[in-house]
Amino acid sequence: MSLENFSIIESTLREGEQFVNAFFSTAEKIQIATLLDAFGVEYLELTSPLASPESYNDCVTIAGLGLNARILTHTRCTLEDAKKAVDTGVDGVDVVIGTSSYLRDFSHGKSIDQIIELAQVVVEFLLSQGVETRFSTEDSLRSDSGDILRVYQAVDALGVDRVGIADTVGVGTPQQIYALVKNLRSTIKADIEFHGHNDSGCAIANAYAALEAGATHIDTAVLGIGERNGITPLGGLVARLYATDPALVKKYHLPLIRNLDSMVARMVGVDIPFNNYITGFASFAHKAGIHAKAVLNNPSTYEILKPEDFGLTRYIHVAHRLTGWNAVKNRAEQLGLDLDDGQLKYLTEKIKAAADSGRLTLDDVDSLLYTAANHHSENGLETAVYSM
Amino acid sequence: MSLENFSIIESTLREGEQFVNAFFSTAEKIQIATLLDAFGVEYLELTSPLASPESYNDCVTIAGLGLNARILTHTRCTLEDAKKAVDTGVDGVDVVIGTSSYLRDFSHGKSIDQIIELAQVVVEFLLSQGVETRFSTEDSLRSDSGDILRVYQAVDALGVDRVGIADTVGVGTPQQIYALVKNLRSTIKADIEFHGHNDSGCAIANAYAALEAGATHIDTAVLGIGERNGITPLGGLVARLYATDPALVKKYHLPLIRNLDSMVARMVGVDIPFNNYITGFASFAHKAGIHAKAVLNNPSTYEILKPEDFGLTRYIHVAHRLTGWNAVKNRAEQLGLDLDDGQLKYLTEKIKAAADSGRLTLDDVDSLLYTAANHHSENGLETAVYSM
Repeated sequence: MSLENFSIIESTLREGEQFVNAFFSTAEKIQIATLLDAFGVEYLELTSPLASPESYNDCVTIAGLGLNARILTHTRCTLEDAKKAVDTGVDGVDVVIGTSSYLRDFSHGKSIDQIIELAQVVVEFLLSQGVETRFSTEDSLRSDSGDILRVYQAVDALGVDRVGIADTVGVGTPQQIYALVKNLRSTIKADIEFHGHNDSGCAIANAYAALEAGATHIDTAVLGIGERNGITPLGGLVARLYATDPALVKKYHLPLIRNLDSMVARMVGVDIPFNNYITGFASFAHKAGIHAKAVLNNPSTYEILKPEDFGLTRYIHVAHRLTGWNAVKNRAEQLGLDLDDGQLKYLTEKIKAAADSGRLTLDDVDSLLYTAANHHSENGLETAVYSM
Repeated sequence: MSLENFSIIESTLREGEQFVNAFFSTAEKIQIATLLDAFGVEYLELTSPLASPESYNDCVTIAGLGLNARILTHTRCTLEDAKKAVDTGVDGVDVVIGTSSYLRDFSHGKSIDQIIELAQVVVEFLLSQGVETRFSTEDSLRSDSGDILRVYQAVDALGVDRVGIADTVGVGTPQQIYALVKNLRSTIKADIEFHGHNDSGCAIANAYAALEAGATHIDTAVLGIGERNGITPLGGLVARLYATDPALVKKYHLPLIRNLDSMVARMVGVDIPFNNYITGFASFAHKAGIHAKAVLNNPSTYEILKPEDFGLTRYIHVAHRLTGWNAVKNRAEQLGLDLDDGQLKYLTEKIKAAADSGRLTLDDVDSLLYTAANHHSENGLETAVYSM
């Protein structure tokens, strides 16, 4: 298990820029890079300097910020691209070439032998320049596994720092990723990176399976933004590792996930999904009476993530027909109201009945509780006003 | 592999009602049930009739609609609950009880022996009433595996129709789920159901792993709504199975996923997440030049889901600095403009330069193309007007 010893290659500024809504100005790129660096990711990956003059300048600028994170850029597997990448002053270059028959026939048209020849030239050049060098196949999951092993072995023999597996179309399953990485781990000396798209909902599980099989580097983007519906989200990967063992992610500054998700969502003009990992608005909301009761006794009953570790708080939802008297009691206590168990059980029935015949707000519930407390105690009104 | 022979237990009307924002009127429940039935799910699970008088009435109403889907309700493991469930006229009852030390200590307080005794009484009663009977542990992933095996064997000996594994806190990994279901499959005669929460991003992958290991039934909710950030989403499970083989989901009416996601999102007051499976607005959007070029040659290069199978269309994004001339050429063709390759390459550079210095809209791109075509051809204006 290499779960204890992995690095995040944060690709919001490369894969994320391929999200349909993304347009990052230089100033925004610097904000994103700085906040990701404060969070503690080990690498930042930037759009190829070949993409446009501004992309070139942004590589130079971010490589010059003096961040703790190592700065990578991502290029096609050609000598021209590799030279331009080195010129920007980045710490490392991620080169990629498609190896599936889909991409060989309909994209670049090269044979596996041609790919190997090209890969050797490019990797040798990059290593001679002293930059950290990764070679990745593209669409690895739909490539012939014998083909990609040959390509990886050719660059491994040259001393490449890292090889990459890319589930470019989001088709892989955890079992497939595990088997592929495991096989590679037993054959190759280099580090192993995994890049996974989320079209079929496995991007987090696949990244985790890659780590279980011996991968060392995982690509992420904030909110998972990227081509189509994106890749492994940074917050989602952190949630997965934390659920296994919070110690695995203690090297990161977890409360910044909220800031990262909010900032990037604003920049690309989307809302944080209601069901997002950690930062979705309902991630720490408990509703059914049986859940609320147990969480009030001990939050671990129905929470695998502790909201306080992420600078967040839990919410016990009380104004609905599935509520229970433990949740109502907790709300009365929050309001500083003195009601006995008999009253609370009676009020719970009233709340359930009211919610059963139409939508009910927390204000409606609070009114019921205040009214009951006023009947109950001569200083009820004072208590009520005091705690509002 | 039982991938060819599984059923969906659609729980929007039970687990989904536990989503913090959900309040379904009877009319809305009927709409949801009817549309899910038209989609083709095999089962609908409804909130316990014990939750409130309206919940009881809704079970009676939906059980009486004459849908193809079998109607289930979900209750605690007590004889009182089981009797009331049978009274509603549903086809089956899903009973559940917590077996982890968390839930035994902080929720119901029962020992494993007490749980077995209770389970036997309730299951025997339900089977005697001729209703389809499922017995599930809750928080199965944090339960002692010896404990839950004993409980399952006790109800299996009575002839229970189905046993359930519930990853109630969303902590399980695909490897763990696979091992648990595999072990159960070799020990138990009954069908096996999996219910998985998504706190750590594995709900889809875990459901898939359960099927690979021999599970027969998967719980879903539309958009995954449920307690906290929810469970396996219906659309996400379908995307996963389709990615493996479209034939696995040909029994469902796939274009209705869009209607289901939109309808439920509206009812619970959320937006469909931008990165949602199938129905997220960017799910079929292609941006980087290299992706656009290949997709225009053959969509399978970068698409594992065919949008047309879901009643949707793809979108090639052209107005950005990562664009390529194949995408620009495609856009010119959509507009009916006659431009040669030299012109298109020149225009692509102009578009990239304009996008590099600020945000660019599709209108801006179209203007550039129209202007160039007007210079090029005497009937350019006519063509331009014609195709608007």
